[in-house]
Amino acid sequence: MMIGRVVSSVVSSRKYQELQGFKLLVIQPYFGGKEDCLVAADEIGAGEGELVLVTRGSAVEHGLSRKAPVDAVVVGILDHDPILKD
Amino acid sequence: MMIGRVVSSVVSSRKYQELQGFKLLVIQPYFGGKEDCLVAADEIGAGEGELVLVTRGSAVEHGLSRKAPVDAVVVGILDHDPILKD
Amino acid sequence: MMIGRVVSSVVSSRKYQELQGFKLLVIQPYFGGKEDCLVAADEIGAGEGELVLVTRGSAVEHGLSRKAPVDAVVVGILDHDPILKD
Amino acid sequence: MMIGRVVSSVVSSRKYQELQGFKLLVIQPYFGGKEDCLVAADEIGAGEGELVLVTRGSAVEHGLSRKAPVDAVVVGILDHDPILKD
Amino acid sequence: MMIGRVVSSVVSSRKYQELQGFKLLVIQPYFGGKEDCLVAADEIGAGEGELVLVTRGSAVEHGLSRKAPVDAVVVGILDHDPILKD
Repeated sequence: MMIGRVVSSVVSSRKYQELQGFKLLVIQPYFGGKEDCLVAADEIGAGEGELVLVTRGSAVEHGLSRKAPVDAVVVGILDHDPILKD
Repeated sequence: MMIGRVVSSVVSSRKYQELQGFKLLVIQPYFGGKEDCLVAADEIGAGEGELVLVTRGSAVEHGLSRKAPVDAVVVGILDHDPILKD
Repeated sequence: MMIGRVVSSVVSSRKYQELQGFKLLVIQPYFGGKEDCLVAADEIGAGEGELVLVTRGSAVEHGLSRKAPVDAVVVGILDHDPILKD
Repeated sequence: MMIGRVVSSVVSSRKYQELQGFKLLVIQPYFGGKEDCLVAADEIGAGEGELVLVTRGSAVEHGLSRKAPVDAVVVGILDHDPILKD
Repeated sequence: MMIGRVVSSVVSSRKYQELQGFKLLVIQPYFGGKEDCLVAADEIGAGEGELVLVTRGSAVEHGLSRKAPVDAVVVGILDHDPILKD
């Protein structure tokens, strides 16, 4: 999974019906830069500025309440920043 | 999902029959550079210059009207640019 | 999908039986550099120097005539270079 | 698979129920830099500082005791560093 | 598929039972640098220094003799280096 910070959300009026109801969050990777930002579906209510755990790929379907053309989903909200000893 | 801008389309006369009927759009990532451009199938009518949401990988099959050897599909057109507070 | 140019082919005498019969082409990404070259199976007869469309990942199985341990396949030959307005 | 070192773990009180019980480790790739750190589920008890083997993508489900929205899993602990002749 | 050179192997005494019996090779990409090295399962007997073809992702299961949490497998040994006209 990827650790990322919720930096924004996107609005799309013209989209697949299967995407209706998902909040679509822009996530900036905690490790890495802005050029790797991605959009993840959210069903657990992550807010802007929060650190989240994002699952990508085929495992996403185990994290969605229904089948949808979604390749990234927020699966958890972190309690605090990961501490890296360096 | 990836946010990208439609910058072009491609024409392929010699291709798999299963690709017939899909519009094939060249998408430049909104975050990142031209070297990450990819081609996505489009069934919702995205036009050049528009910002779109692209799903990749195994979830693509939930976004296509039929089985096809396609690994990226346009699933939504954004109403406006994402706003990133920085 | 990725746009790439056929730059070479590879020969492998010792390989999985399931790979027999596929032409294995070295593809250089049109966007990006030589360090991202990959090998794709080809069943539509793409020739060296031609621009092709390559599908990767789980959708590859919809582009192969049989099940095989193949993660990239040529699905189309482009009529001409994509035109990017910049 | 990726070789990586366990550098930390993450705590998430608000997460998918399917993630309960997995230890979530932050793994830094052995080859590559900190910007490629990822989070992997662990069921074999890898400890901080240990070198591990991480499987990603759809094969992860063969490495989990149950279905979960997890895209990376620790599948082995290395006995020692890989020796690269260079 | 990726072309890579076998540069080492890894030993893991504490690992998933499903990984028993696979040789685990460290592969350095032929195109690209050491930071992209990965570990692939090998059932065809590739030796150190040999150039191999590696399949990744969901197609790996068509290249393994049994189900396992493995995301990369050696599917062929190249007869010689690919020749790139440049």
